Amino acid sequence: MDFLGDVEPVELIILQLFIIFLFAKIAGEIFERLKQPPLIGELIVGIVLGTAYFHSALELESSEEILEVLSELGVIFLLFIIGLETKFSDLRRVGKLAITVGILGVVFPLMFGVVLMLAWGGSIAVAAFVGTAMVATSIGITAHVLRDMGVMKTKEAKIIMGAAVIDDVMGMIVLTVVTGFASEHHLSLVDLLIVIIEAVVFVLAVMYLGGKIIRKLAGEKIILGLSVTDKKSDRIAKIQHKNAPFILALILCLGLSAVAVIFFRLAAIIGAFLAGMMFAEVRERYGLVEKMEPMNDFLLPFFFVFIGMQVNLLVLYDFNLVILIIILTVLAVAGKLIGSAVGTRELDSRQKLIIGVGMVPRGEVGIIVASVGLSLAIITDELYSVIIFMSIITTLLAPPLLKQLFSKKS
Amino acid sequence: MDFLGDVEPVELIILQLFIIFLFAKIAGEIFERLKQPPLIGELIVGIVLGTAYFHSALELESSEEILEVLSELGVIFLLFIIGLETKFSDLRRVGKLAITVGILGVVFPLMFGVVLMLAWGGSIAVAAFVGTAMVATSIGITAHVLRDMGVMKTKEAKIIMGAAVIDDVMGMIVLTVVTGFASEHHLSLVDLLIVIIEAVVFVLAVMYLGGKIIRKLAGEKIILGLSVTDKKSDRIAKIQHKNAPFILALILCLGLSAVAVIFFRLAAIIGAFLAGMMFAEVRERYGLVEKMEPMNDFLLPFFFVFIGMQVNLLVLYDFNLVILIIILTVLAVAGKLIGSAVGTRELDSRQKLIIGVGMVPRGEVGIIVASVGLSLAIITDELYSVIIFMSIITTLLAPPLLKQLFSKKS
Repeated sequence: MDFLGDVEPVELIILQLFIIFLFAKIAGEIFERLKQPPLIGELIVGIVLGTAYFHSALELESSEEILEVLSELGVIFLLFIIGLETKFSDLRRVGKLAITVGILGVVFPLMFGVVLMLAWGGSIAVAAFVGTAMVATSIGITAHVLRDMGVMKTKEAKIIMGAAVIDDVMGMIVLTVVTGFASEHHLSLVDLLIVIIEAVVFVLAVMYLGGKIIRKLAGEKIILGLSVTDKKSDRIAKIQHKNAPFILALILCLGLSAVAVIFFRLAAIIGAFLAGMMFAEVRERYGLVEKMEPMNDFLLPFFFVFIGMQVNLLVLYDFNLVILIIILTVLAVAGKLIGSAVGTRELDSRQKLIIGVGMVPRGEVGIIVASVGLSLAIITDELYSVIIFMSIITTLLAPPLLKQLFSKKS
Repeated sequence: MDFLGDVEPVELIILQLFIIFLFAKIAGEIFERLKQPPLIGELIVGIVLGTAYFHSALELESSEEILEVLSELGVIFLLFIIGLETKFSDLRRVGKLAITVGILGVVFPLMFGVVLMLAWGGSIAVAAFVGTAMVATSIGITAHVLRDMGVMKTKEAKIIMGAAVIDDVMGMIVLTVVTGFASEHHLSLVDLLIVIIEAVVFVLAVMYLGGKIIRKLAGEKIILGLSVTDKKSDRIAKIQHKNAPFILALILCLGLSAVAVIFFRLAAIIGAFLAGMMFAEVRERYGLVEKMEPMNDFLLPFFFVFIGMQVNLLVLYDFNLVILIIILTVLAVAGKLIGSAVGTRELDSRQKLIIGVGMVPRGEVGIIVASVGLSLAIITDELYSVIIFMSIITTLLAPPLLKQLFSKKS
């Protein structure tokens, strides 16, 4: 494209962002119409734009850093929203079954992933990362399917959603431990333990105390076990700035992301998730999710496209790696099914299957863990691509299976 | 800050963005409490962070490009919102007085600015840019004061608001002509005329036809002079993507920004403004302003801080430049007062004064024009700083004067 020759760099970037955004949204729309998760379409756009031809035609090498920052902001805000949707009080309220399913649905895939990678000849750090990428359910996909089918109120759906909340929190704790571990692998066992304890204390302290502080600032009180708002003592409302609660939330989101990285050597997204959880109890009052969503609409495509651009299609020509993708995917599915089967002994087998399948999609969460591993240089380009393929396949598998299982029921 | 030594570049940038955002919002809050426009606080944060000490302590040189892109996105989305708030149908509805005041309030400051800069020894291009920076009213500041005082329904307020709409559109057309002119200054007069006609036709065509197309896609029809929504023929609602109208608006905003730059050699913000105007008639139905506002809350501080970082405080040590700031500010105020006085002969002198003062703040609009001039290398660093100071002073002047004038009335 020669006519780009004398365009200012910043304006070239605006053009590139426009092209990426346009293609991502068109692909998303096509996948939406095919009743598939739109994020798969956005990933594919990234894979295509990442090929040498498009990369040089669009002069994308000049904007690699910008894309990386926008995609990092996108995933930070995504984890912030996921945090906003994870109330600490919900954690207590979900039933025993959901807790068991959630925990076992973390334990089995983690174990499978670690054992597989060690058997494959990977280091402990690599094994831990691949295991972690297999842990967390991307509940967004399943929730979308369940809502579409109008079965959100069934017992199975409730267990899935409850278990997914447990899953999110446990997944973050596992990621915390693994990143703490991975970034300090030259230390002694004692030092390592200190790092891990530090990280876990940070996560639990922010999760528990952070929410309390925000509720207090917002004037929420627990009277006889019920949450009551005392508007007079709402100190957040006293800030003059327009949209003060939203801006305070943004400040904490960026701040905790930075703190997680700098002081605890964790991934920035862990801080963002915790900041989200801090505001979860007051999210409806301040309309926080509604305000965050447009930011996600704008920034998230850059994350998925950027992820796609890093995928190396050559892995598909390597027989060994294709085998690894298949085994990893089978174990990722089996881990959740076994977790569900062991955790819900009193339910019948179709219910067990529905719950297990509902937790199969790894979607963005598996991808996020893989990208953290790549940025820490623990996971190779090839293994990264393998995990992305596992995430894509599990995400594509679940919706049609769920539909069939539910339609058999009625 | 030595502990930043081994942080990944992307994560260092997240930290820098956090610090900039935090300080900008704190300064904004302080100015809000002092009943002053918060953007002044954000500019001051930029000026402080731009000094050598902070610049190197925060390692800001590593993120200059990112900040520039975020600030460009911020100002693109700001102009998009201003466009959203400028309905083509409002342009017809504002009274004759508002139209006259709007036009004269553009003509006088433009003339004053051009004559002053030519007398000061500037080239025609420089004179045209300084004149343009003196044209457009930053209505946000005045509207805020008027709303606070509860006088929005007075005749004076209505004339000010109507004139500001005219002002915005005329300001954009003047900027279009001036950038077209400035980027082609090596061409003959005929070529130049072609460039200018092209640009003006682009602006008017998008303004008029663009809005029609969007209204048609959205199923709006004019029946007996009234706008009616036919939901069946709303093609935008047929897009499957969540928040489709908002995403379509974002795509057009980025797309027209790129088109304005690449094909018409205009500033990107002109395209963004036009995209906003295209959606102005359907903005309420799709909640577009509410969805854009969080993006602005996040991105705009980076624009003002970035602008502030470019301000050179040394101009205040140069006697000649201080004189220039004073003369420019006096002419900027006088231009609006004379425009109002000439345009509203039938009103009494206090009303004339209120309307004139209401249009004095140049705020973000003057600053935006200056930054376009700087990026085109037409305006020097020093002249850029002079214009920023003129914008700051006019913005600070208007609110207290307006309050006094209105309180005298009652």
